[in-house]
Amino acid sequence: MRFWKGHGTENDFVLLPDLDGALDLTPDLVVRLCDRRAGVGGDGVLRVVRSAAAGVESEAEFFMDYRNADGSVAEMCGNGVRVYARYLVQAGLVPAGPLLLATRGGTKHVQVGDDLVTVDMGRARVGEPFTVDGAEAVAVDMGNPHAVLAVDSVEALGVLDPERKDVNVEYVETRGPRHVAFRVHERGVGETRSCGTGACAVVVAQVLRTGSGRGESYDVDVPGGRLEVTWRQDGHVLLTGPAVLVAQGVLREDWLTAKQP
Amino acid sequence: MRFWKGHGTENDFVLLPDLDGALDLTPDLVVRLCDRRAGVGGDGVLRVVRSAAAGVESEAEFFMDYRNADGSVAEMCGNGVRVYARYLVQAGLVPAGPLLLATRGGTKHVQVGDDLVTVDMGRARVGEPFTVDGAEAVAVDMGNPHAVLAVDSVEALGVLDPERKDVNVEYVETRGPRHVAFRVHERGVGETRSCGTGACAVVVAQVLRTGSGRGESYDVDVPGGRLEVTWRQDGHVLLTGPAVLVAQGVLREDWLTAKQP
Repeated sequence: MRFWKGHGTENDFVLLPDLDGALDLTPDLVVRLCDRRAGVGGDGVLRVVRSAAAGVESEAEFFMDYRNADGSVAEMCGNGVRVYARYLVQAGLVPAGPLLLATRGGTKHVQVGDDLVTVDMGRARVGEPFTVDGAEAVAVDMGNPHAVLAVDSVEALGVLDPERKDVNVEYVETRGPRHVAFRVHERGVGETRSCGTGACAVVVAQVLRTGSGRGESYDVDVPGGRLEVTWRQDGHVLLTGPAVLVAQGVLREDWLTAKQP
Repeated sequence: MRFWKGHGTENDFVLLPDLDGALDLTPDLVVRLCDRRAGVGGDGVLRVVRSAAAGVESEAEFFMDYRNADGSVAEMCGNGVRVYARYLVQAGLVPAGPLLLATRGGTKHVQVGDDLVTVDMGRARVGEPFTVDGAEAVAVDMGNPHAVLAVDSVEALGVLDPERKDVNVEYVETRGPRHVAFRVHERGVGETRSCGTGACAVVVAQVLRTGSGRGESYDVDVPGGRLEVTWRQDGHVLLTGPAVLVAQGVLREDWLTAKQP
């Protein structure tokens, strides 16, 4: 079984090329692959399969079958979709430039450049503000729920432990005009090095809070690197960032077939 | 650049086959390779090189050039030497069975079986007992210093935070005759899933404490699996355990040559 390993702002993935959908990707195998010590290691698995072979009706040739490290199915991943698109180009399956990708969260428009990849993450939905940790949070839905809180310094925060664990909570520091940094506590996971939908929610909240910057590109610093986010006038959010492929290889047959304890 | 990934009781390594010593393995490259998100991921790097090519005078054909994840050079690693030996056999460089390996800690006698690999870890040196966390610890030197403490339950310990950080501290629970479990706080690292020299020190201390079991095989449970340890009558300690190769592959040229931030 062949694999690639890649990351986007240190959100990392095991890619499994399975163009014709021949692979039986069980939750157990996903968990074993994502194990950082006894497996390859990753935040999730991206199975690369043709839409037709996956039984997905789409104008996009390829379908992103994304699985979380715990083996569960996920709709979308803003960092994963960039790494997936980078793989398609580096493997010679599509040319660089504009690309359509099918995901469980709908068909995504992607633009693959030399260093950076841009994804149209769809429309942001802003909800009623609510209170988290005694402060007013901006509620933004990017297909998943976010609560965005303004803080003076992300470094000064210490361990993130928000009272609300049922939403993704972002703590945002303003670093300049169109420049923010944030740390995120992801629902069901804890703090992570980067969160693509979180970066989108953060910029939407920042535009709303400052009353400016709509339609303009923000620099967004996360612990794992830098993203760029634009909240377009039409409501769509564009997420831009690096997508790096580290290695490619094959899994050892005796590892794949080993009895599990 | 080719690599393999493997682990022994979840102490994991990036192996770099470099038989003729052509590789310029800088500390920076070691750090990047061991990065669990932006690299391949591992507790250390095992460079596989012929002794002659490494400038090491030894009767052993191969030299284990072991590096810690922080890029520093290390003398020996009880779990790493098993994984290294397994690689030599699976890559067809040596037959299974007895094998001599050169390391910075001297030449090691290894026995490669179908599932388990045994290493003669050399002679244990027992020191004067001293006090750690208010209890009397057995001091055992296995080339590195260990302090072994008896506890009722390793599960009940919570976060390991020994007052002594200049030695490796093992907390040992007796599970039956010739059967122990331990957790370890490694000097300069923190708690790990397994420690080969720690397992040796634990069994030496257990033999001294109980006054029995010298020359007999102990089962030693660690968070990452099970090891077997025998303190021979002649003072040498034999460490036996699994050694698993997960995958093999090549690093992407553009990742290797990428400018670092």
